[in-house]
Amino acid sequence: MIKVFAPASVANIGCGYDTMGFAVTEIGEEIQVTKRPDDKLVINEIVGADLSYNPEQNVATIAIQSLLDALRTTQGFDISIHKFFKPGSGLGSSASSAAGAVFAVNELLNRPFKREELLQFALEGEAFASSSYHADNVAPSLLGGVQVIRSYNPLDVFRVEMKSKLEVLLIFPDVEVKTAESKKLLPTNISMQTARNQWGNVAGLIHAFHIGDNKLLRSSIMDLIAEPVRKSAIPKYEEVKRIVLQHGSVGFNISGSGPSMFALFDLDGDIEQSIDDISGLYQDCDFDCKIYRSKIDLVGCKVIS
Amino acid sequence: MIKVFAPASVANIGCGYDTMGFAVTEIGEEIQVTKRPDDKLVINEIVGADLSYNPEQNVATIAIQSLLDALRTTQGFDISIHKFFKPGSGLGSSASSAAGAVFAVNELLNRPFKREELLQFALEGEAFASSSYHADNVAPSLLGGVQVIRSYNPLDVFRVEMKSKLEVLLIFPDVEVKTAESKKLLPTNISMQTARNQWGNVAGLIHAFHIGDNKLLRSSIMDLIAEPVRKSAIPKYEEVKRIVLQHGSVGFNISGSGPSMFALFDLDGDIEQSIDDISGLYQDCDFDCKIYRSKIDLVGCKVIS
Repeated sequence: MIKVFAPASVANIGCGYDTMGFAVTEIGEEIQVTKRPDDKLVINEIVGADLSYNPEQNVATIAIQSLLDALRTTQGFDISIHKFFKPGSGLGSSASSAAGAVFAVNELLNRPFKREELLQFALEGEAFASSSYHADNVAPSLLGGVQVIRSYNPLDVFRVEMKSKLEVLLIFPDVEVKTAESKKLLPTNISMQTARNQWGNVAGLIHAFHIGDNKLLRSSIMDLIAEPVRKSAIPKYEEVKRIVLQHGSVGFNISGSGPSMFALFDLDGDIEQSIDDISGLYQDCDFDCKIYRSKIDLVGCKVIS
Repeated sequence: MIKVFAPASVANIGCGYDTMGFAVTEIGEEIQVTKRPDDKLVINEIVGADLSYNPEQNVATIAIQSLLDALRTTQGFDISIHKFFKPGSGLGSSASSAAGAVFAVNELLNRPFKREELLQFALEGEAFASSSYHADNVAPSLLGGVQVIRSYNPLDVFRVEMKSKLEVLLIFPDVEVKTAESKKLLPTNISMQTARNQWGNVAGLIHAFHIGDNKLLRSSIMDLIAEPVRKSAIPKYEEVKRIVLQHGSVGFNISGSGPSMFALFDLDGDIEQSIDDISGLYQDCDFDCKIYRSKIDLVGCKVIS
C-alpha cells in the first residue's frame, strides 16, 4: 500500500496559454493505491468530488492503464482518491489525479520509470478529462516548480527555477467552469499583433523568474487571449485584480480556465490585507469564496505513507 | 568631431518575430558627426550604400532630428556614413544608422541622455526605413547583447545574458529583400496552435540562454511564422540549413527579413567546415555570397575616435 500527495497547480501563468504552470503546496489530493491479486483496476473510494468509479471514465485509472500498457503488465490495483479541492475550480484537479495515480503505481512497482517519464501516461488521463492534450497542469503537479511545455510533438518540458521567493494567493469563487467548454470560447485564430505581444510577455516572464525581477514579472503576467473571454464567467474578477495589484501583487491572472484566480506576492506585498479585502468583497455580495495562501511547490507528487 | 561604430544585428532569432535580436562584432557601420556653426543637418558622405542625402529621407538624420527636438536645440551637424554591409541584407542596416547617429550626437553633446533613453529616437529613424515601428534591430545595435522588446506601448526592453559562449556565422547571399515588402508577405492572423508553439519556443530560447542549454537552444530557434513564407526568397536556404545543422550549429534561421541567415555555434560545432561547405555550395551555382564569422557583440554602439 502507498499513499501519495499530488499538488494542485496553476496553468497558463497569464501569458503562457497551454504552455506553462506551477504547482502549489497548500492544496492537492491524496491517492492511495494497493496491489490486487487480480488484473482489475478498482476505484474503492472518491472523497471530495462527484466523479466516475468506472475505471474507463476516471482520469486516475486511465492514466494508470496507460502506464501498465507500456509495461505490458496485467497487475491490478485498488485505488482511493481524496480530493481537497473541487474539480472545475481551475486548479488542475484532473491533472493532480492523473499525476498522483501514475506516480503512486510507479512507486509501488519499484520505479520502472523515471519521474519525468511518467508525464506521458499522466497526459493520457488528462486528455480524457479535458478533451485536449495539454500538460500545463500535469507537468507541475508531477514534477513540481514552474514547468514549461516547449513542444507537444515531440513532448519537450523544462523547469524554470525562480530566483525570488514568492508566495501565492489562490482565490476560488465557487462557480464551476468546465475546461473543455471554456476552451471552446477561445478564438481559433489571433492577430499577429496579439501573438507578438503575448510572446513578448512570455519572454519577460521567463527572464523575470530567472533574474528575480518582480517588476518585470508583474508586467509580463498579462493575458491578451484567454482573460478577455474568460473573465466574465468569474464573479468580481476585476475587483479582485484591483485589490491584489493595489496591495503589491507581482502578478495576477486566471488560474487555468478559472474560476480560480492566482496572485503572486513577494515580501513587499501585503497578502493579509489582500485576503481581508477579498473576503469582505465576496461577503458583501453573499458569495461563497475560498482563499488559500500557499507557497510554490518545488517537489511535485510525493509519498506520504 | 566624433566617430562611432554601430554593430549590425540579427533580429527575430527564429521564434521571436519583432521581439528580439542580438548584435554582432564583425560587421556594422561607422558614423562620423561634427558640430556645425548653423542649425542644419548635412549628410556629407555615404560610402557603401546608395541612400538619400536628404536629411528628411535618411534614417540617421531623422533619428538625430528626433533627439534634437526632444532637447529643444537647433544645433546643426555634419554627418558621414560608412557602411560595411549592404542595406536590404537582413542585418539591420537602417537600425545601425539610426542607433549610431543618435549615439554619436549624444556623445558630442556630452550625454544629455542615458544610452537606454536614446532608443526612442533611434526608433523614429528605423520606423521611417521599414515602415513599421520595431526595435528588434535598433535595441541590440544601440545596447549590445541579446535584447528583448517585451512591449512597444509602453516601450519595455530588457537584456538577456547568455551563459554559453557562442559564435555566429552570418551568411549573406547577395539578393536584396526590402523589409517593408517582406513584412507584407506575413499573415495578419495566425492559428492559436501556431501561436502557442511559437511562444513555447520563445520560452525555451530565453531559458536556454540563461542556463546555457544549447540542445534546448537548437530546438527553440525555430520559426513557424516568417520562415515558411520568407525562405523561398533566399537562394539555397534549405541546403545552408542542412549544412550548419549537420556541423553542429545550435540554432539556425533567417536573420531579420533575410536574405541573410545566421547560425550559432558552441565549441562542439564545426564552423570552419560549415564555411567551406557553404562557400562551395554557392560557388557551384555561381552565386555571390558573403560569409562572416563573428562573436555576439556585448557593447552596442561605441566611440572609435
